[in-house]
Amino acid sequence: MTTELAERAALTSGSSTWHTTAAVGVPLLVLADGPHGVRRQRGGGDALGIGTSVPATCFPPAVGLGATWDVDLLRRVGAALGAEARALDVDVLLAPGMNIKRSPLNGRNFEYLSEDPFLTGRLAAAMVEGIQSAGVAACIKHFAVNNQETDRMRVSADVDDRALREVYLAAFEHVVRTARPWMVMSAYNRVNGVPASEHPWLLTEVLRDEWGYDGVVVSDWGAVEDRVAAVRAGLDLEMPPSGTDERIVAAVTAGELDEAVLDRVADRMARLAERVRATAPARPEGWVEGSASDDDLADMRAAHHALAREAATASVVLLKNDGRLLPLDRAAGQSVAVVGELARTPRFQGGGSSRVVPTRLSSALDALSGRLGDRLRFAAGYTLDGTPSRELVDEAVATARDADVAVVFLGLPEAAESEGFDRTTIDLPDDQLALLSAVAEVAPEVVVVLSNGGVVSVSPWQDRAGAVLEGWLLGQAGGEAVADLLLGDAAPSGRLAEAIPLRLADHPSHLHFPGRDGTVTYGEGTYVGYRQLDTLDVPVAYPFGHGLTYTTFAYSDPRVTACGENAWEISWTVTNTGPRAGREVAQLYVGRQEDRPTRPRVQLAGFASVALEPGASQRVALPLRARDLSTWDAAHRRWSLAAGTYDVRMGASSRDVRLVATVETGGDRFLPPLTRMSTIGEWRADPAGSEVLSALLGRFAAAAGRGTVAPELLRMLDDFPLVKLRTFRLGLTEEVIDGLVEQVAAEHRRLVDSGRYRSS
Amino acid sequence: MTTELAERAALTSGSSTWHTTAAVGVPLLVLADGPHGVRRQRGGGDALGIGTSVPATCFPPAVGLGATWDVDLLRRVGAALGAEARALDVDVLLAPGMNIKRSPLNGRNFEYLSEDPFLTGRLAAAMVEGIQSAGVAACIKHFAVNNQETDRMRVSADVDDRALREVYLAAFEHVVRTARPWMVMSAYNRVNGVPASEHPWLLTEVLRDEWGYDGVVVSDWGAVEDRVAAVRAGLDLEMPPSGTDERIVAAVTAGELDEAVLDRVADRMARLAERVRATAPARPEGWVEGSASDDDLADMRAAHHALAREAATASVVLLKNDGRLLPLDRAAGQSVAVVGELARTPRFQGGGSSRVVPTRLSSALDALSGRLGDRLRFAAGYTLDGTPSRELVDEAVATARDADVAVVFLGLPEAAESEGFDRTTIDLPDDQLALLSAVAEVAPEVVVVLSNGGVVSVSPWQDRAGAVLEGWLLGQAGGEAVADLLLGDAAPSGRLAEAIPLRLADHPSHLHFPGRDGTVTYGEGTYVGYRQLDTLDVPVAYPFGHGLTYTTFAYSDPRVTACGENAWEISWTVTNTGPRAGREVAQLYVGRQEDRPTRPRVQLAGFASVALEPGASQRVALPLRARDLSTWDAAHRRWSLAAGTYDVRMGASSRDVRLVATVETGGDRFLPPLTRMSTIGEWRADPAGSEVLSALLGRFAAAAGRGTVAPELLRMLDDFPLVKLRTFRLGLTEEVIDGLVEQVAAEHRRLVDSGRYRSS
Repeated sequence: MTTELAERAALTSGSSTWHTTAAVGVPLLVLADGPHGVRRQRGGGDALGIGTSVPATCFPPAVGLGATWDVDLLRRVGAALGAEARALDVDVLLAPGMNIKRSPLNGRNFEYLSEDPFLTGRLAAAMVEGIQSAGVAACIKHFAVNNQETDRMRVSADVDDRALREVYLAAFEHVVRTARPWMVMSAYNRVNGVPASEHPWLLTEVLRDEWGYDGVVVSDWGAVEDRVAAVRAGLDLEMPPSGTDERIVAAVTAGELDEAVLDRVADRMARLAERVRATAPARPEGWVEGSASDDDLADMRAAHHALAREAATASVVLLKNDGRLLPLDRAAGQSVAVVGELARTPRFQGGGSSRVVPTRLSSALDALSGRLGDRLRFAAGYTLDGTPSRELVDEAVATARDADVAVVFLGLPEAAESEGFDRTTIDLPDDQLALLSAVAEVAPEVVVVLSNGGVVSVSPWQDRAGAVLEGWLLGQAGGEAVADLLLGDAAPSGRLAEAIPLRLADHPSHLHFPGRDGTVTYGEGTYVGYRQLDTLDVPVAYPFGHGLTYTTFAYSDPRVTACGENAWEISWTVTNTGPRAGREVAQLYVGRQEDRPTRPRVQLAGFASVALEPGASQRVALPLRARDLSTWDAAHRRWSLAAGTYDVRMGASSRDVRLVATVETGGDRFLPPLTRMSTIGEWRADPAGSEVLSALLGRFAAAAGRGTVAPELLRMLDDFPLVKLRTFRLGLTEEVIDGLVEQVAAEHRRLVDSGRYRSS
Repeated sequence: MTTELAERAALTSGSSTWHTTAAVGVPLLVLADGPHGVRRQRGGGDALGIGTSVPATCFPPAVGLGATWDVDLLRRVGAALGAEARALDVDVLLAPGMNIKRSPLNGRNFEYLSEDPFLTGRLAAAMVEGIQSAGVAACIKHFAVNNQETDRMRVSADVDDRALREVYLAAFEHVVRTARPWMVMSAYNRVNGVPASEHPWLLTEVLRDEWGYDGVVVSDWGAVEDRVAAVRAGLDLEMPPSGTDERIVAAVTAGELDEAVLDRVADRMARLAERVRATAPARPEGWVEGSASDDDLADMRAAHHALAREAATASVVLLKNDGRLLPLDRAAGQSVAVVGELARTPRFQGGGSSRVVPTRLSSALDALSGRLGDRLRFAAGYTLDGTPSRELVDEAVATARDADVAVVFLGLPEAAESEGFDRTTIDLPDDQLALLSAVAEVAPEVVVVLSNGGVVSVSPWQDRAGAVLEGWLLGQAGGEAVADLLLGDAAPSGRLAEAIPLRLADHPSHLHFPGRDGTVTYGEGTYVGYRQLDTLDVPVAYPFGHGLTYTTFAYSDPRVTACGENAWEISWTVTNTGPRAGREVAQLYVGRQEDRPTRPRVQLAGFASVALEPGASQRVALPLRARDLSTWDAAHRRWSLAAGTYDVRMGASSRDVRLVATVETGGDRFLPPLTRMSTIGEWRADPAGSEVLSALLGRFAAAAGRGTVAPELLRMLDDFPLVKLRTFRLGLTEEVIDGLVEQVAAEHRRLVDSGRYRSS
């Protein structure tokens, strides 16, 4: 019995940094990091778990994939990641990362998809589906509210219910409900004071009971503080093992932990193994971990490199392109000065646990040189350690002076951003900006290409460039992709998955990030990123969803089609009106125009990636559901759809609205119960309450010597809870109050029975 | 015993709307509303408690008094209120109101002093001292975080510890500690979920245990929901009585409420009665409540009317005065068009429980007519119910066209703001703005005089006026005061006690007021009002502290004098450099210029009211204390003074800085304990921790094959709690961790014993 107990307890933690424990018939499983590439460490992994690994295709990190706004592409990238994982004997891939980019300063933003939960949810779901299609478990992370690196193992993210539901949990909910991932990783941080890895509400009530999750919950590496509390809360697997399983045993023995909890864990671990087994190709006879050789992977790697290049191409956002400076006119034989160390030494991924060893790597300088030959001259211009160098600047100026166009590669060096710490500024390094100024003085035309994992400010310098390509971190094929785009072999089509503010101080999180004294208060609530900037009409450098290409698109023929109660289809036509093929990301936003906002005025509710030849048209049709218009009602703990008229905007960004329509709804017909603490205003607004209360209000009027209650008194009374009217001594005894409450409850039952209202 | 218990329980509620209960030897006391005038209702008061009352001097409501920035004046107004209360047999005056103006929309802002806790605290303390100097108890209200009327009896104000301490409790703390009020009124609302009237932390831990309060806590009228919870939490007196004292008796009998709680209440009620008795003139033989006749008060009333006029004059803020349009040149014989119903029908106080029946009342029109005679023409221009009237506008235009100057009275009608509901806009009524436009078209010069209890936007229309006088609500002598100021018989000297934003959407509270679903989240945290606007450099119509007059002042010779550890005197010279006598409100602001703000960049820390003849100078000397530079450390629950350099700015508003100095401090030398959950960064920054940790860090370096830990790894490690390093298997067992913690604790004791550091 004790042995069996110990064996079952052993399942609650791994057997090494990257292995689960084989016990009570549940086989060992292999895990690997890998939001954008499989980081397979041979054997048990090094002690830190962040050392070198087997080469694998390095796809663009999430910051790039998020900017593609391309669900199909993410599904294919997911499938490729799954296939590589499978080939490397990995059963669980710790991907995708899907926390919300609450602040541009989060050092780990490059691992996340967007500041918007709708976009994040759709893209992450596609990636999960892709990964799991290869018989490998996806592991969505970090659940939840892990939006900063500062004090990440300890900080309490204090966030209200609405922001939790509408922003921080919404994407997780979508992925769990639709893509059904087999694993979820709990976060390091605390949520409203409770460690996420020991959070019963988060790990059990919400994740499992509400959303129906039936997979395994694994801790982030080293997140668990209290083993027993974690298991009790719904955490199945501690990674890496802290060697404290005996605490679980002791707690069960002492009766402090229900033994059934261990059965639950065993069931879930077994289910995970079955899922992997049922879908993955069988391991060959005599399988030994790590037996797949690099040679076996050669074909796969070639195909995946091509996919990585496609994904990188779709990730790049053309922020501005004055006078159609891009693409560079190859036919005209322009001479090109390529300036910037980042052209030669690409930053193609971020630092920390997600780092992979790429199978190939070419820089933009390599790719451009190969095509432009002698017409290209290069100057480094700056060093990546930020030391100002007059010599390098002079050389770059001389190089640019002689060229027709200068392509200046700027961005954040390794040291500026990484997992593990947050940035304190969104500005580019001073030495790079000085270089740009110097080059712009002499160059006839300037194109800037950016490399950065977190958003950087552009307003201080972008007037010096005719065109700006935001190249994020693009993975191992980024150099080729950038060359394709600059030279017109491909057209940019990425879109901003986060707004770029004019200055950091305009950002909604500015005064509330990263907190202090062990707490970060999410002061902006549900108004995260563009949701606040657009609601308050704060000027921005570039709005959410923005991105240009080499052609133009027209929007026409909007149509709203009702498809049952509180369900619509919103459709319109997108036409390529320019001279080249291109991809448009058509976007749908919803909101209400209230004088006093009670919700964001602009919220993404749909998008479609549409590739069109010149002159071609396509009809976009997007579903709009009750949930897309709903807000979280914290008082009744439910999604609430208020009756009324909602704006439906179709556009090319959150601020580039091309078509407008409206939908009308009678709301969700929820009838909240009326209680003694319900206000007179609530009673009066209720379909039954007004009648029930009429006698009482009559006494008020009489007390004031009138026939009806004066409007100004009513205005004040409307905020009085019913029970507080006792103070006015108008015969409102406890018995009378109870009577009113019972009477209205009976009326409510009648209204609900009649089908006119709902009680939940 | 039971009878005696019932009698003692009777002390926990009043005997009528305005009387305490006489029991167990504690005499009956009389209470009256009255932040700006004694609202004495004869007998027990009407059921609603808001009916008519005995005439009393109506001083400017708090919105006016707050704008005086004049501590001495508020003390004199307080003394006058106390004297009238005493003459009307009132023992407790429910004044002053001192909640923070968190949002300009709060319908009750006219009853509050400022958006700034420093200013609020200083002014309220003076008022309390004044009132109690007459032997009448002051009752500061509403404790605490009562910053809106919407859902006020039920809403939970969810606010973080820092904002609570630095903003919402700070003024109360100052008043309790320095002016020692004899009564405190608990608020209607909940604070972080707990009703303020049943809040043990608020009413006992903070108010009494921390601040040393020894007076009575009374409920706001009708605030108590749970009698037993309220008494247990530290509420002494329920008002008005709900007739449920038997619940207290039952709870004591059932052992659910400690009987000692009733002794505590009795002691406090007895102490209150003694305090009133000890300082108030004895009641005459055969005293009957309400026996003071109106005639007895005649002399007092005349003197108090003069004081009300002085206070009103000091309350008015001259917002702009292009080309010295004001004062009107009486000698030049200008003809004056007075336009606006509010000139004839003054709004001199707000609606709700604070309303008093004035002893006299004159309108600005009366006062101006008396002095200008035939040179004045009047046109109503609009009605107070907001119905647009073409006729009235035409008449006003005709009147203004013929005059040399039009003085246009605009403002908020009664229906626009009151206790009991919040505004939804800060704009003036449309019909008034249309009138102003029409008048400005034809009038050679336009002066606008405003009447409003809450701030109104001025940017949409102020270009149409050469001068704007913000006249708030000015009490019964406001008409005379405005006439004095317009005609130069007095000079304006009021200052904005809250910034006026360009638009409501710029205000920090905009998206977080008034909440919904029973909760209002104070998302802006400690960055309330100008503290946020100035920290983010948001353009405003007028900054906090702004106000012009008819002369000019120069600032010179700043000096910072150290007066012991973390105490300074900041002094400078103010000189009247203009042609007229005037009063300057010299202001002191402190802050730190951080790239990433961790506190407001600008915070009021002192002010002085300086009246100077032309050419005269005066030295201003203000104390600066550790507390003025400190922030609340929520982790260690204490005020924290960080070492470093602080800006000290001397100016005429928060943005009109005339002199700048700095103070340096070594901080408060607090040595926080290091624990297993303290991060490596915290250990390394600690004077003892770095040494204690050196061996461990050495092992890290060795594991990475180096002599010292690489900076980039250290950067990531710095956010790791010590205990989390277990994951890395470098011999960091539980025993080793405990050893390190013990070792550093011993070092700490040594450092504290040596006097170099403090442990609390």
